[in-house]
Amino acid sequence: MPGNSVGIVQRQYFTFAEETPMRLDSGESLGPLTLAYETYGQLNADSSNAILICHALSGDSHVAGYYTPEDAAPGWWDECVGPGKAFDTNKYFVICSNVIGGCQGSTGPSSIYPATGKPYGLSFPVITIGDMVRAQRHLIDYLGIEKLLTVAGGSMGGMQVLEWAAHYPERLQSAIPIATTARHSPMLIAFGEVGRQAIYADPNWNQGDYYEGAHPDAGLAVARMVGHITYLSEDSMHQKFGRRLQTREHFGYDFETDFAIESYLRHNGQRFTERFDANSFLYVTKALDYFDLENGYHKLSQAFDNSANLPYLVLSFTSDWLYPAYHAKELVSALTAAGADVTYLNIESTWGHDAFLLEVETMTKLLGQFLSRIDRHFH
Amino acid sequence: MPGNSVGIVQRQYFTFAEETPMRLDSGESLGPLTLAYETYGQLNADSSNAILICHALSGDSHVAGYYTPEDAAPGWWDECVGPGKAFDTNKYFVICSNVIGGCQGSTGPSSIYPATGKPYGLSFPVITIGDMVRAQRHLIDYLGIEKLLTVAGGSMGGMQVLEWAAHYPERLQSAIPIATTARHSPMLIAFGEVGRQAIYADPNWNQGDYYEGAHPDAGLAVARMVGHITYLSEDSMHQKFGRRLQTREHFGYDFETDFAIESYLRHNGQRFTERFDANSFLYVTKALDYFDLENGYHKLSQAFDNSANLPYLVLSFTSDWLYPAYHAKELVSALTAAGADVTYLNIESTWGHDAFLLEVETMTKLLGQFLSRIDRHFH
Repeated sequence: MPGNSVGIVQRQYFTFAEETPMRLDSGESLGPLTLAYETYGQLNADSSNAILICHALSGDSHVAGYYTPEDAAPGWWDECVGPGKAFDTNKYFVICSNVIGGCQGSTGPSSIYPATGKPYGLSFPVITIGDMVRAQRHLIDYLGIEKLLTVAGGSMGGMQVLEWAAHYPERLQSAIPIATTARHSPMLIAFGEVGRQAIYADPNWNQGDYYEGAHPDAGLAVARMVGHITYLSEDSMHQKFGRRLQTREHFGYDFETDFAIESYLRHNGQRFTERFDANSFLYVTKALDYFDLENGYHKLSQAFDNSANLPYLVLSFTSDWLYPAYHAKELVSALTAAGADVTYLNIESTWGHDAFLLEVETMTKLLGQFLSRIDRHFH
Repeated sequence: MPGNSVGIVQRQYFTFAEETPMRLDSGESLGPLTLAYETYGQLNADSSNAILICHALSGDSHVAGYYTPEDAAPGWWDECVGPGKAFDTNKYFVICSNVIGGCQGSTGPSSIYPATGKPYGLSFPVITIGDMVRAQRHLIDYLGIEKLLTVAGGSMGGMQVLEWAAHYPERLQSAIPIATTARHSPMLIAFGEVGRQAIYADPNWNQGDYYEGAHPDAGLAVARMVGHITYLSEDSMHQKFGRRLQTREHFGYDFETDFAIESYLRHNGQRFTERFDANSFLYVTKALDYFDLENGYHKLSQAFDNSANLPYLVLSFTSDWLYPAYHAKELVSALTAAGADVTYLNIESTWGHDAFLLEVETMTKLLGQFLSRIDRHFH
């Protein structure tokens, strides 16, 4: 356990919407709802140092630190959250909650459906990024925080950031959308659909009703492998794997693993099935595909009309082909048209979409400067 | 049936390696071998006007024309092969054969294994692009053609072109590799492996032994959908589909088809299973992944040492992210270093990898000029 980690953390749970179910974008209602969340650092006396971090598709509330000293790895953004790090837990109170629809403690399709006493499966209503954020707002209320110093996140986390800015600007001092988009492109939808089809194709999926039997691990692993390719870049694959063979000296001329990249994908696909629920994959990717902040407006900038007074830090990465820089630039144009104060950087990186987890040094500098400015202005 | 098509064509078959099986790159032997092929136009008196066209992963020998006047569509490159077209069948004798390992008439894993009287399945040996080309050479011998005026192809077809140039330069007057690479990149291997994993994950695949029962259509459809995304570009997806809904006016908030791009992928995946064999998909993608012309040399240019006197026309497309222009540029550098006469164009196109099938006007001009020059020089 490295010394500059936040150390040992605990997952906590907050349950709400017990009597009045939460209204969803679909028109359905959902309740009771539980959010699994973690906090890091101390909330100050006037509750003005709180930062909400929103996770990506396969993330969870465990953004930093360790559950036990024996953990093989810390939380998913440990390099950016901790004492002296980009989100400095010596100064800030950092919150991260698992999204609804997920499977790491928050209510999702694998949770027990009160009406039947069995897991929801496909009885779980289809949710949106807006619904995820609405649930988070309940948590922020519960924690007694009137205004977040900032809300930050990459990929799907960045979409949640934009939803916060568009719908609850009065609850924010600033917003940091990273490696994200204001609307899911057809290519993103296409990759989402292929992942879902891989799950549907697994007979164990059984229309989502598999919790008492074998899980659709084979389908989920394929879905994950497809996703994993899109998080890398040609450059990073060349650097990490090239055409290197995994354990063989020569081609095997069979269908076992020849190349290191094959081994990596197989391993990642398999490992993913140990920690992720196939139905959650369906629900969360569907929420991603539905995401289009412009929906209901004539143009994107109108979505930010009420949040024009917020400072934004928008980051993209040069080798990210899943959420290419032009998505961020479109977002920056809309924010600028709405009159917002936007700092935008397209960070040079070879790491593809994963750069938002890996370009720690550059991000630490940028996030630190931005947060100091917001913090100074706020206090 | 359009008037400038080559009209009604027939698939023909050539069987060889009956007594002496063909030696494969793996060290295994294979025979007898049948190649399904089609020809278009007339071979001239001195057999000097023959052009070999090599097909891509899912292609076949049916490059142009119709089998019956009722056919819904002509061959896969009909826009480029026919009277007055890029490969002008008024002047040239065009040949196209299905690759070995394939499933459209040539010997592959769905063919009958003489030793058992049943389909090969996984008893079929793993083949390479080199093996595909070696088989084609037998066909060219059989047709009595000493020198091909050119060999041309896109994608996997382009790899066959490069194999021809590297190993049988004395049989060529020129070579036209399009939208291709001299070595499969780790990203290409990754997509290949995901497609294969989707097939392995289908219980109907049954270790390749499925010809008497249900076929692994669900897995093959997912494999095809993944592939299909990689043949398009963000631009072409925006143009063709955007975020348009297929039949609904509003989101369905369910897991049926919402978006046009989803419908397109589902449809294409399903249709592919009607014409392609899952085991062939495994063998052909494995051949792609093994492809590395540099293998056995110190540097790529040495692969072309014996073909330095050939004129090459190399084409890539700006929006092709599967075989990006830098692959073509690497190839052009190697060819130039070997002393070859290379014409290279990176054609402006929004169609992604599929551009080699779609940028007909530009290609017709370029191919026409190049072929006229070769033809003049040859005669």
